[in-house]
Amino acid sequence: MISQITPDMEARLTRIAEQMRADGLDAILISSNANLFYATGLFFRGYVYVDAAGRTLWLVVKPAMEPAGHIAAIRKPEQIMEVLGKHGVTLSAGAVLGMELDSLSVSGYARLEKCFPTVTLRNASGVLRRARMVKTPGELALMRHDGIMQTAAYEQFGKLFHPGMTDIEFQIEMERVLRLQGSLGFLRVAGNLMEINLGNVLAGDNADTPSPYEFSMGGAGVSVSMPGGANGTVIRPGMTVMVDMNGNFNGYQTDLTRVWSLGELPGKAVEAHECSCRILRRCEREGIPGTPVAHLARIAEEEVREAGLKEYFMGHRQQAAFIGHGVGIELNEQPVVMLRSRDILQADMTLALEPKFVIPKVGAVGVENTYRVTSGGLENLTPMPEKIIPLD
Amino acid sequence: MISQITPDMEARLTRIAEQMRADGLDAILISSNANLFYATGLFFRGYVYVDAAGRTLWLVVKPAMEPAGHIAAIRKPEQIMEVLGKHGVTLSAGAVLGMELDSLSVSGYARLEKCFPTVTLRNASGVLRRARMVKTPGELALMRHDGIMQTAAYEQFGKLFHPGMTDIEFQIEMERVLRLQGSLGFLRVAGNLMEINLGNVLAGDNADTPSPYEFSMGGAGVSVSMPGGANGTVIRPGMTVMVDMNGNFNGYQTDLTRVWSLGELPGKAVEAHECSCRILRRCEREGIPGTPVAHLARIAEEEVREAGLKEYFMGHRQQAAFIGHGVGIELNEQPVVMLRSRDILQADMTLALEPKFVIPKVGAVGVENTYRVTSGGLENLTPMPEKIIPLD
Repeated sequence: MISQITPDMEARLTRIAEQMRADGLDAILISSNANLFYATGLFFRGYVYVDAAGRTLWLVVKPAMEPAGHIAAIRKPEQIMEVLGKHGVTLSAGAVLGMELDSLSVSGYARLEKCFPTVTLRNASGVLRRARMVKTPGELALMRHDGIMQTAAYEQFGKLFHPGMTDIEFQIEMERVLRLQGSLGFLRVAGNLMEINLGNVLAGDNADTPSPYEFSMGGAGVSVSMPGGANGTVIRPGMTVMVDMNGNFNGYQTDLTRVWSLGELPGKAVEAHECSCRILRRCEREGIPGTPVAHLARIAEEEVREAGLKEYFMGHRQQAAFIGHGVGIELNEQPVVMLRSRDILQADMTLALEPKFVIPKVGAVGVENTYRVTSGGLENLTPMPEKIIPLD
Repeated sequence: MISQITPDMEARLTRIAEQMRADGLDAILISSNANLFYATGLFFRGYVYVDAAGRTLWLVVKPAMEPAGHIAAIRKPEQIMEVLGKHGVTLSAGAVLGMELDSLSVSGYARLEKCFPTVTLRNASGVLRRARMVKTPGELALMRHDGIMQTAAYEQFGKLFHPGMTDIEFQIEMERVLRLQGSLGFLRVAGNLMEINLGNVLAGDNADTPSPYEFSMGGAGVSVSMPGGANGTVIRPGMTVMVDMNGNFNGYQTDLTRVWSLGELPGKAVEAHECSCRILRRCEREGIPGTPVAHLARIAEEEVREAGLKEYFMGHRQQAAFIGHGVGIELNEQPVVMLRSRDILQADMTLALEPKFVIPKVGAVGVENTYRVTSGGLENLTPMPEKIIPLD
């Protein structure tokens, strides 16, 4: 287990510290799994303390770790103050300590609060979201690897199909290929508004079933306990099959959607798919640092209006309000690409852009790629052909 | 979508109301996914209001639902008080309203708190955990179905093996079989201390790698981002392969572990496996309503001591403090079967009992079954042969 502070981890700690100072925090105590992985490059049960100079101390509950200057063993949070003191860290009275109030439970927080009676506690969830919005070179390397593995899996999907297959049967074979390619079979999502295994396969009209979750697309699912995605639809001629199956090969994710089809599709479906590609081409050119994130949503709005496809965009019976999102350790990171976004594109942000359409009686069409923001526009981390791919 | 109040839902609401009255709550506002599914038998985004008489109102954000007496559409939590009033529900000043403080985030709670300025808010997580601890007939029917599907998948696992396979390759083929059998590919767990796809396959000494999570067993995993389970070990003669792959075929889960082996195993491994079976046989006889849950852990302690296997029990380098747990909608429900438990067995509780051992150089052995508590002892919901199964 690598338990050193690597240069890339220093870069991440520097990003956290910058955002911390902007919010007037003196230190942060990280306890969520995703942020703990961000700050340490690995996963253990415990806490990570980071101060406004970017110095860090790992407070490890388990498993036992080899001693190092930045590692301290604890059994319970009540020991944190004392252990910090032993490591020369003093939180003076009135110091401002950040915690992740957007993910910490009320009960969990109540316990932690008692451990820090003399300091002022504030929400640090935003600090960590903003820090993670722009990726470090090490993070980008992991996401590039993820993109390569994910596209390599996608290239095998077409040949998994056989006539008479249902959407869920097709999906199961894709999951196997993703897993054999190295997918961890589980991905981190923020909040409780998304429950998903590795992704979403939508065939025909099932794409028009509204979702209770915050996904771009819906689907009835195979159980009322978890409504979303494939529902057992037999894939028939005239249908599209939209595949939005995730990877997570190393703790980081890229997000990728391609569409397969059986038989002839009506012109409107092909048109809408081409409109999605046009939106992505314009975003790729115009998405440079300094551009408002909302501009990407406006590009989509313009192209969709011009093509007269508004009623099918981002769903039909129920429409999503975003056309893309940040992605990395979690599937749903910042920024959210929507008209009312106030974020500005920065170099090395990573964005999944997914302008999609649901055409009644046909299914979903559109493309999703994961991009890195560069001064030359968006760099595609998931390059592969975008045309609708025939299954026959 | 079934959106009626079924008799089984009435039974669940009655259980919630009983526990609510025991804790002095006048009503509960449910917002977590697992409890929402418990109270409604389906899943939507929104809230479920339940009062101390077991009456309920569903406050549905999305997707849109057909109107019914117990259904009200809302856009945001700020509307709840007004919508309740329109449905004849008045929360008088000083009424005690429960919310799930063990799962609600501090930020989410702060928003809800403002919506109920005149009532007293209290933690209802315990009320819901206790209600869910004893299953209704409808829940038991779903768990029986789950047990049948899960054992049917397990019976196919042996023939998926071929010589030279790694643990993760073996696991991927098992996942496919579980999925084809109807597994939803995702399971609900409570809290952030477990991250898992469908389960855990441990071959040889990888079983002795301590886990950061609250699982009974460990394993290094294939990525430092999510350490747990299979790590790419090639399955070789003299090793055991412990399979603890979950189902979740309908929103409810049964939990089941069996062991496969390649070649000859040392006597100690076989002995320990037999000790696990002896523990289960005694628990099956002695686990009747009225028995302290701790008694089951004491049975294990006695049998393990008598067999001289203490240093291998529930792990070797790191040992888990529990030998079983409640199971149902979530993998980790109440009660926890451990020496310091104060719970008492009640009829129709469902328990996964998993007395396991880790034998260095060999791997993990032991059996896990999911049981229903009955007046005649524990009824096995996952019956299938328990002996170590040869892969060759």
